Amino acid sequence: MKFSVFVPPCMLEEKKECPVLYYLSGLTCTHENFIHKSGMQQHAAKEGILIVNPDTSPRNVNIPGEDDAYDFGSGAGFYVNATQEPWSKNYLMYSYVTEELVELVNKNFAVLPNKKGIFGHSMGGHGALICALKNPGQYQSVSAFAPICNPIECPWGQKALKGYLGDDKEQWKQYDATHLAQNYAGTPLELFIDQGSDDNFLKQKQLLPDNLLTACAGNDHLQAIYKQREGYDHSYYYIATFVGEHIAYHAKFLKN
Amino acid sequence: MKFSVFVPPCMLEEKKECPVLYYLSGLTCTHENFIHKSGMQQHAAKEGILIVNPDTSPRNVNIPGEDDAYDFGSGAGFYVNATQEPWSKNYLMYSYVTEELVELVNKNFAVLPNKKGIFGHSMGGHGALICALKNPGQYQSVSAFAPICNPIECPWGQKALKGYLGDDKEQWKQYDATHLAQNYAGTPLELFIDQGSDDNFLKQKQLLPDNLLTACAGNDHLQAIYKQREGYDHSYYYIATFVGEHIAYHAKFLKN
Repeated sequence: MKFSVFVPPCMLEEKKECPVLYYLSGLTCTHENFIHKSGMQQHAAKEGILIVNPDTSPRNVNIPGEDDAYDFGSGAGFYVNATQEPWSKNYLMYSYVTEELVELVNKNFAVLPNKKGIFGHSMGGHGALICALKNPGQYQSVSAFAPICNPIECPWGQKALKGYLGDDKEQWKQYDATHLAQNYAGTPLELFIDQGSDDNFLKQKQLLPDNLLTACAGNDHLQAIYKQREGYDHSYYYIATFVGEHIAYHAKFLKN
Repeated sequence: MKFSVFVPPCMLEEKKECPVLYYLSGLTCTHENFIHKSGMQQHAAKEGILIVNPDTSPRNVNIPGEDDAYDFGSGAGFYVNATQEPWSKNYLMYSYVTEELVELVNKNFAVLPNKKGIFGHSMGGHGALICALKNPGQYQSVSAFAPICNPIECPWGQKALKGYLGDDKEQWKQYDATHLAQNYAGTPLELFIDQGSDDNFLKQKQLLPDNLLTACAGNDHLQAIYKQREGYDHSYYYIATFVGEHIAYHAKFLKN
């Protein structure tokens, strides 16, 4: 599994321990899209936060058809632990992101283990939300660009969850941010949801932020901040525009 | 020929006429690298400058071998007008960048025709320098990231100039920034040269900035500003770090 790490100057030059912020990418991405296209480095450098950016799935594990679709298999791990053959051996992205990768990062970089945030885009926004909602207290901050908020109700989510988890829809709910938000009973958590108003996938009802916002409104343990960006689409140009605001948002929680 | 245009908000929203800044890319690039990787949009938006970013060569013109090398043919037009068959029909990048493209932009966008700057990277830094040096008064500002400053003396330049212009080295000089700087007698011009200290191509003597600086020092019509960036390489990460400074530099000339 490849992942990228941006090490901020304060860690390199002053040997300071830093907070860590995980970024999860969307469908079709590798670990490279965010480092090439977001311009996040300047903001992470300024705030003194280490950024970790994993790939979106296992690669080249020789499952027949693994590269056939953009929204299932390679590049589309959906941040779940697959239970269905032949995916269940390798497609364990949820454990990878929340455990294996965290241990690896904590062991190899001078990060503050209790100052850890997570964010992501689209499928990765879904990933960030479920990681935070399923692990109360583990992530001090969470935000998402155009996240898939209710995958059990949208075509992308239904295809992936059925493929990785099988036909029993009850199993899908454990990876659905809206369902998790309805039932969240952990330490108080704020969810910063960012959404472009001209996002085609919003119009196609792949993202469904309203469902998550309704769930948050009904749960005293959760607070949602929703920012709709007029005229912005689903692209990395949109992310590049607001990534500085997100990193500054995380810094508020991670540096106090 | 494909090219990209970034239209700043002030032109879109306030219908204001804006300065224009041309960016020329380096070897292997298309019109996309700069828009995807540099993060220039935020700076161009802030300064209110239209950015035009052409491709680095003609494409798919069916010349045998046009795609065989990274440093000749497709992606490597070198901003010259080729005189050698079979390149001389299509590989006229110098005229394209200084005339055809400028006319097209002036006709289709509300740019101020006398507020025009040019910059570029590597082969495109060479391109920016020769466009400014060969057309005194036409460009109000010029800067370059890690430019090929003396192509007649480096392997990249020798290969390209021989291939496009033939064996007569006298012909090569008309596209050599150092030679042009030695002989420049036009309106006073400032050249802003930017260079990373850990740039492999600097070490391999492909760039040769010292030769250009020496030429400028000996010419009262030219003023060179040279910024060496400690520890930076030749990549788009380097460009992304300093592109804001370059656009602000051009704004000083283009907005007064």
